[in-house]
Amino acid sequence: MTEARRTVYFVSDRTGITAETLGHSLLTQFTLDFEQRTIPFVDSEEKANQVVEQIAAAGQRSGLRPIVFSTVVDAHVRRVMQTTDAVLFDFFDTFIAPLEQELHMPSSHVIGRSHGVVDNNMYDVRIDAMNYALSHDDGAVTNHYSRADVILTAVSRSGKTPTCIYLALQYGIYAANYPLTQDDLTRGKLPRKLVEHKRKLYGLTINVDRLQKIRSGRLPNSDYASLRQCSYEVARAEALFKGEGISFVNTTTMSIEEIATKIIHEAKLERRLY
Amino acid sequence: MTEARRTVYFVSDRTGITAETLGHSLLTQFTLDFEQRTIPFVDSEEKANQVVEQIAAAGQRSGLRPIVFSTVVDAHVRRVMQTTDAVLFDFFDTFIAPLEQELHMPSSHVIGRSHGVVDNNMYDVRIDAMNYALSHDDGAVTNHYSRADVILTAVSRSGKTPTCIYLALQYGIYAANYPLTQDDLTRGKLPRKLVEHKRKLYGLTINVDRLQKIRSGRLPNSDYASLRQCSYEVARAEALFKGEGISFVNTTTMSIEEIATKIIHEAKLERRLY
Repeated sequence: MTEARRTVYFVSDRTGITAETLGHSLLTQFTLDFEQRTIPFVDSEEKANQVVEQIAAAGQRSGLRPIVFSTVVDAHVRRVMQTTDAVLFDFFDTFIAPLEQELHMPSSHVIGRSHGVVDNNMYDVRIDAMNYALSHDDGAVTNHYSRADVILTAVSRSGKTPTCIYLALQYGIYAANYPLTQDDLTRGKLPRKLVEHKRKLYGLTINVDRLQKIRSGRLPNSDYASLRQCSYEVARAEALFKGEGISFVNTTTMSIEEIATKIIHEAKLERRLY
Repeated sequence: MTEARRTVYFVSDRTGITAETLGHSLLTQFTLDFEQRTIPFVDSEEKANQVVEQIAAAGQRSGLRPIVFSTVVDAHVRRVMQTTDAVLFDFFDTFIAPLEQELHMPSSHVIGRSHGVVDNNMYDVRIDAMNYALSHDDGAVTNHYSRADVILTAVSRSGKTPTCIYLALQYGIYAANYPLTQDDLTRGKLPRKLVEHKRKLYGLTINVDRLQKIRSGRLPNSDYASLRQCSYEVARAEALFKGEGISFVNTTTMSIEEIATKIIHEAKLERRLY
């Protein structure tokens, strides 16, 4: 019999993403294994009642009091949520009152639209930046680099594409990427089409063993995935970055979010979305 | 002279994403215009002292007390942050103590890795799901639909691609997408290659005027962007969804996050990332 795990609920009247973000960053502080459940779109007292029952049932099953992170805004729904026997972290309750006091105004109590930017202009920027990242992926199109806020360059499989997409999605930043070719690496020089955009370049590098592992997952036993080839490419890429004075970051132990925010911070990129 | 805006800081020892998420969802409750600044990677007392000075300077410039959302974990850095004259919302302070009490254990006080999943398996799932979304975009490859958790289908420019990418990035869900062709719409039937995966299908639709606007931004004055063509496609697509019993969602006023969470919720998809 496995040990009972405590159930953690993320409850929201919208997507649940804020509740999850909030909760995750707290739970990572404890070396425990939690059973995690997100319940989005809890926007009526009826639904809230069902959620309270569901939480109570989970507590009875495990014998451990559930923990609830709630970002519900509506006062009626929150009142129902507050009837739970679980440990309730009511995000709105905790922070909104002191904010109202400081700002000398009541909050709107309108269900949050913090993810969403339903404002069509913001939406357009976001989608446009994403389309830009997709169409300028892997050096496929290089004739619109003048529109780029940043051009990521690195050897294949070091994290360029996800980082570009994340920069677009989260920050509305136009990020192109250019994979260093065998020819670039051998010559030890930037290709001509990148030279004029040199100040926009940001390099990524990665530890050789990690690169080998990633490439092997894609093309097992290939020359491309060989330790020799990976070592060669990484060494040459780093030498190129240093020689050309291009800032670079080692992505080996970083998440996409960390790589993206690091680049924004270091390259002082202007974000378009908040 | 424009009215002074209050400055809001999001301070973090990591990416700042949790602090921003927290702060944004609270600030949207107030009909005020804020000047927003994120300061990530504040991981030493020295850096914290600089941040405290920077915040004080902003307060003096605007004459309005700044608001600070901090997710700093390190006790020494937090102590410095607490010397600020600004309104400080210390996320860690607020929630960690009650959590420690409930869980009967001290928190690790290790800088958060909530975004990140530096665990390589989790990283692999995420990147693999994203590569899947990219290589199964716009019906380009249809022979691996058996691996898909969900296949989004809709007319061109209704939000399929960003939704698929978001599902991969945030939840590790394998999402393919299939654009309904003129032929599919005219026949009013699913193409043969989708029939066997029918239970994985989820439709997107969009209001005609919004679709026309998006398409016009891409190909102005084209038949593709004409009101007549947009109306025809949307009507036929919705009829197809209804006829085939495919659930669908209207994306017009929804953010990518909302579309993605709606689909997960309604289609009861299993996420791989938390």
